[in-house]
Formats: sequence, structure tokens, C-alpha cells
Amino acid sequence: MTLSGPIAILAGSGQLPIQLVKHLERTGQDYRVLAFRGFASPELRRRSHASVDLLDLKSIMSTLEGWRPGAVSLVGAVRRPGFSALLGAYSLLRNRQEVREVINRGDDQVLRGAVMLLEERGHRVVGAHELAPELLASRSLCGSVEPTGDDRRAVAMGLDLLGSLSAFDIGQAAVVARQHVLAIEGPEGTDGMLRRVRGLRQSWLGLRRRREGGVLIKAAKRGQDLRVDMPTIGPRTVAEAAGAGLSGIAIGAGSTFVLEQEETLRRADRLGLFLAAVDLPWMEPRHG
Amino acid sequence: MTLSGPIAILAGSGQLPIQLVKHLERTGQDYRVLAFRGFASPELRRRSHASVDLLDLKSIMSTLEGWRPGAVSLVGAVRRPGFSALLGAYSLLRNRQEVREVINRGDDQVLRGAVMLLEERGHRVVGAHELAPELLASRSLCGSVEPTGDDRRAVAMGLDLLGSLSAFDIGQAAVVARQHVLAIEGPEGTDGMLRRVRGLRQSWLGLRRRREGGVLIKAAKRGQDLRVDMPTIGPRTVAEAAGAGLSGIAIGAGSTFVLEQEETLRRADRLGLFLAAVDLPWMEPRHG
Repeated sequence: MTLSGPIAILAGSGQLPIQLVKHLERTGQDYRVLAFRGFASPELRRRSHASVDLLDLKSIMSTLEGWRPGAVSLVGAVRRPGFSALLGAYSLLRNRQEVREVINRGDDQVLRGAVMLLEERGHRVVGAHELAPELLASRSLCGSVEPTGDDRRAVAMGLDLLGSLSAFDIGQAAVVARQHVLAIEGPEGTDGMLRRVRGLRQSWLGLRRRREGGVLIKAAKRGQDLRVDMPTIGPRTVAEAAGAGLSGIAIGAGSTFVLEQEETLRRADRLGLFLAAVDLPWMEPRHG
Repeated sequence: MTLSGPIAILAGSGQLPIQLVKHLERTGQDYRVLAFRGFASPELRRRSHASVDLLDLKSIMSTLEGWRPGAVSLVGAVRRPGFSALLGAYSLLRNRQEVREVINRGDDQVLRGAVMLLEERGHRVVGAHELAPELLASRSLCGSVEPTGDDRRAVAMGLDLLGSLSAFDIGQAAVVARQHVLAIEGPEGTDGMLRRVRGLRQSWLGLRRRREGGVLIKAAKRGQDLRVDMPTIGPRTVAEAAGAGLSGIAIGAGSTFVLEQEETLRRADRLGLFLAAVDLPWMEPRHG
């Protein structure tokens, strides 16, 4: 990617921003990090060039103006602020009714709104996967544990379910045991959902005595803007899935970040979970 | 309903079995209660004629044989037992592979399987709503708080969502705030889901400062067997919904039990929540 200026990274929480920064350093690319206060990790903040409040759109815009970036990337997680805080912040820049309608429609739309604002100011918004494709799960990604027939059927059902939910801007993930849906991810996130499944199983069985099986299926929604909202797993996801008694994890090939891929695979092998990248019926197949 | 013998009530947990028994006493109907150990409440067990383990199908069948009931009703909640416990229990009566396939397909199918077993032995399985229609939410049920425009749109979206999920045998309920889905009910049940929403909001806002709104939508799935699995709310649901900061509750008219209707309405009014019974697009309209 040839750019006319540095890459500006608007960084939330989690491992992804730091992995991206390390990739940019390794490949000798010029970058600036604008860290969201209260979200960016300490490790990232040590490498950041400025900090802002998530809702301080004026400072965000003026910082970017100063940097004249060749591309802007929104990376890492932020918690959705309360409705009125969002409304107040965005209303400084846009018609209140228009903003209200965008916010009403869920996370996807709020992120889309942020991208639109950046693009209107002439910024080029790129996804972390365009800057660091190596972070994506390739189709060939897999651990050494094989899914069973039950697991495969659970994966198929989970994909079906996530496909049906695409229209509703809810979770990117679900847990299916055999053909029984145990959980659909909401704003609590994947780790939160996996802890819920662990809780369900403990309360059913007194003490969880053995692995009951089940699969975490995590995939981008139909029409999701992968530039700003790429499903992500990592070593912690594997540990939480094992804690919930699952037998494996299926992710969308070419549309999921796997943080620390080697460690993620090693941990899956060690804990006896399969890890598989599957084609999503609603995604364009990736060539090359 | 004219019956040739007593009504046999297979009773799980919750308020519904006791409400049904009280109704049968008030209307002078003959009944026998078979309480599931570990599920039926102490109050119910004082009125029960026998107790069994949920999975002890032989005792269940032989007790029923002794009672020669005119109708059998499965009432109240039971937690889904572990897969292998279910498989072991049902395999005493049926081909193992057949049972395995039924269990795999989720709660609806397991309940359907139980009904099938009873019917094969010549029992007439009836729903609690057929024995005590007064427990159902009528279309005219509503409290004194009116839903706002946002609330109505959230209800419409929630119904749309539950309709789309019908095929998957997952929750009967969801929470939608404006047009943002906050949670879909899984095996944790409605109260568990509402506590999750409360937790989400507390973690977003530090201390929850004011009502953020949102609606609980609870409705039977398309094709759900209402004889054995009727959505149910009561005063506790209202309290949990208020605790989660919701502005109201919408339920399927004619296909939801409302326990202690007066107290439920009074509590909704007192806590400032609307309570509305709505027609479900996928249900036959009820005449009369």
C-alpha cells in the first residue's frame, strides 16, 4: 500500500492495536497512534503519539488534521457509550435527528457513522487487515485436533444462525452444542458469552465433570464493514472456550483476525480443541 | 373440559404448577400431582401425591398407569439434564440412535419427545392453558404506562428477531433498546438474561444513573408446542426488567402466561414500566 503520509491509528483496547503497531514497525512503515483514553493498553500508550477521549471528536479531527495521514485505521475495541453521550458528542458535528437515527440502529451503524465523518473530511479509512494481512486467518489455518461429525453439524448450524441474525446487528458469535444453541453473543462480547456458557454448565451439573462439547462459531456478519469491525480471536479465546467445556472453535476464513497465531494454535492443541477456518456462505470468496 | 379421570400434573419448578393447582381446586376439578424431585417447590410438594426423579421414566409411567388420568399436563420448569443422562434415561424405552437424534435437536424436540412417549401410552396431553385459560395474557391486558414511539419500534424489531430465530429452538425472549439488540435469551432463561443486561449497563456506565430504556419482548416461537412450553412472566419478571433499566415488557397475546396478573400489573405501574400483550404475526389469531 503506497501512502502519501503516515498511517494514523485510532486505537482502542485489546491486543490488536499493539500487534498492528509491531507489524508496521517490522515492515518499516511510518505511523502515528492516537490512543483512546480508558481503552488503549499501557503497552500501547507507551507507543502512542497522542491521547483523546473517545467522544472528543473535535480533538480527534484536529489531531488528524495536524498529522495529514495517508490512511486512517480504527483498531481495537471500545465500549459503546451511553445513548445520550453519543448523541451529545456527534451532534456537535451533525444534525441531531440524523445522528439519533444512526445511533438507534446499533453498533454497525455507529461505526459506519464514524467512518463517514472521517471520509467526509477527506481521510482514507483502511482496515487493519489491509495494513497487516498476516493477522487474518487463512483458509489453511488449523490445529492438530480434528472436529467430529457432531462438531461439523454444530458449525453448520451456527453459521446458519449467524447468517439469519445478520440483519439485526447483534453478535458475531454463537455457541452450539450438537444442534442446540447455547448462547448468542450480545454486547458482552465473546469472552463474556463463553463465561456465560461455563456458568450454565456448572449450574446444570453441580460440578462440571467432563467436557460436554460444543463449538464456538465466530464470523463477520453479512455486510459488516471489516475495516472497522473484524471478528478477532486469540489465545484468551481458546482458554475461555476450553473453560466453557467446548470442543473447538470455527472462524470465518479470510475475515477473522487471529492474534498471536502460533500461541493460539499451540494452546488449542494443548487443550484439545479443534480450530478451523471455514468459508462463510455470505462472503465473497477470497482469491489468492 | 370433560374428562374420564383426574388431571395428572407432572410438576417442575416455579409458580405455574401451584397456580394451576389452585385454579383446579377453585373450580372443583379432580387432580393428582406428580412432583419432580429437586424442581417442585415446597408449597407444591405439600399438595403432591407422589414424587419422582425427572429421568426415572419407568416410575413416571407406572404412577400414571395407576392414576388412569383423563388428561396429563406437564407444567413448570425443569433444567435440561446433561446429554448422556438424557440419553441413558430415554434409551430404556426407545432405540438409542432415535433418542440421540431427538436430544440433539434442542429443548423443543426433547419436550416433543416426552409428549410423544406419553401419547403412545394412550395419555391425552393437555396444556395448562387448556385447563386454566384465565392464566393467559388476554389482548386487553395492559398497565397504565404507555409505550413510547421508541418502545413500539423496539417491540417490532424484537418480534422480527424472535420470528427469525424460530427455526433455531433458542430463546423465547430478547431485549431491544431502540433498534439495538442487547440480548437474546438462551438456556439461562429470562431472569438470567435480564440480569445480564443489568450487568452490561453497569459496566458501561460505572454506576447506572438513570433508566436507559429498552424493552423485553417475550413470545412463543413459531410452531412451539404451547401445551408443554408456554412463555411465562410474573411479578419477578417485572422487577428484573426494572432492575435492567428497561421501560417495558411486551408479550404474545393469548400465548403467554401471566402469573399473579393483578400483582404483575400493579408492580409494572409502580415501577413505571409499560406492559402490553401484542399479536404475534406467526400465531393463529385467537377467536373469542
